[in-house]
Amino acid sequence: MDGLWFKEWRPGRRYMLKIRPGELLTARLKAFAREAGIKNAFIVSAVGSVKNVRLRGIKAGARLPITEPRMHVHQFEGPLELLGLEGNLVPDGKGEIDCHLHILAARSSGEVVGGHLFDAEVFASCEILVSEGLVEGIERHASKSGGVPTIFIEDPE
Amino acid sequence: MDGLWFKEWRPGRRYMLKIRPGELLTARLKAFAREAGIKNAFIVSAVGSVKNVRLRGIKAGARLPITEPRMHVHQFEGPLELLGLEGNLVPDGKGEIDCHLHILAARSSGEVVGGHLFDAEVFASCEILVSEGLVEGIERHASKSGGVPTIFIEDPE
Amino acid sequence: MDGLWFKEWRPGRRYMLKIRPGELLTARLKAFAREAGIKNAFIVSAVGSVKNVRLRGIKAGARLPITEPRMHVHQFEGPLELLGLEGNLVPDGKGEIDCHLHILAARSSGEVVGGHLFDAEVFASCEILVSEGLVEGIERHASKSGGVPTIFIEDPE
Repeated sequence: MDGLWFKEWRPGRRYMLKIRPGELLTARLKAFAREAGIKNAFIVSAVGSVKNVRLRGIKAGARLPITEPRMHVHQFEGPLELLGLEGNLVPDGKGEIDCHLHILAARSSGEVVGGHLFDAEVFASCEILVSEGLVEGIERHASKSGGVPTIFIEDPE
Repeated sequence: MDGLWFKEWRPGRRYMLKIRPGELLTARLKAFAREAGIKNAFIVSAVGSVKNVRLRGIKAGARLPITEPRMHVHQFEGPLELLGLEGNLVPDGKGEIDCHLHILAARSSGEVVGGHLFDAEVFASCEILVSEGLVEGIERHASKSGGVPTIFIEDPE
Repeated sequence: MDGLWFKEWRPGRRYMLKIRPGELLTARLKAFAREAGIKNAFIVSAVGSVKNVRLRGIKAGARLPITEPRMHVHQFEGPLELLGLEGNLVPDGKGEIDCHLHILAARSSGEVVGGHLFDAEVFASCEILVSEGLVEGIERHASKSGGVPTIFIEDPE
């Protein structure tokens, strides 16, 4: 369909993970996926607290493609309440597990900050629900027009 | 149960969608639902980037019902990182697909804005996981007391 | 695995709930779980509007464990758009249903606030999708090192 691709993503296993203080979110998620033999998955739910959050925003008024001068990198020392983690684990072009995660976290004032997550360290605890998808032909590649890696769907419906 | 209705919502198909730059989120979601023959669904996960986001907040101190003078409409040109899309697709009283979506998006400063989504344009890419629900007797209608459309459940448990 | 515990969480029933104006979110969620006989579950999606939101943030620079002097409690009268509810229902050490919920809500300016939820009252409506998990050996206990209750997984994989 014009402007939209879609593909059925059959449900696989579902896991509750707990990541312990001092561990890095993305490294632990990838290690979990390798250990459990998961290729495709998405984050259903994530609560806990984090510190040293490094994330990226897009500069106001930026055009495509999203290049480095068009991004703002922020570092939040925290600790912050982790309010959400949205995204998916989809293999890259070499079949390696790759995460695309966006984070939502609260400052002590209650204000919420967020963006494209580079990495964050778990503060007190982190409880994540991950759901596996049984699907072939979905990979993440760099998009020339967009400037960022994004999923490509082979034989969309 | 007093103050609460609930109904089992059996899992149906699950889809990974990719919406391409320049396309409108709600129009593409509705078009997808029509093409895939989906009546009821909810958004499990959404990441990407958006621009020209039009959303609504409720004025502080407002009372029910939520009428137009009690709302604030905001337009964010962006681009912004899309941090989340929460909501459901439930048919309206005529059986037409209707979306109720709330959006979360980050400004280049890392600050997060959000509200009831009217519409937004995809910037670089948008990856959405949608999960179908097989259920009868759930419809969205305008609520006289609330002032806004909300779901009504026939024969709740 | 070092720094990470995980356990498979088999899918159970899925419910669409509607909580009506004036009702408290956490009380209604717990009452629902008791009525439906649910032990473990997580929130997949939540949209609506809320008022009198009481939540907690962690003070910037705080160390573990998270004790009361290291928290900030905030009260938002609102009403606010409810943009998300993340978290899980897992029994405590006595087998009683216990919620761990983080909230995301928008002020009339479009700014998003959030944190660890104590409680909130439904304003116009609230639509929540809850997914049951069939799992044994996951409980929530106070963590001495973290200072807050968190899940403990018996026999992680």
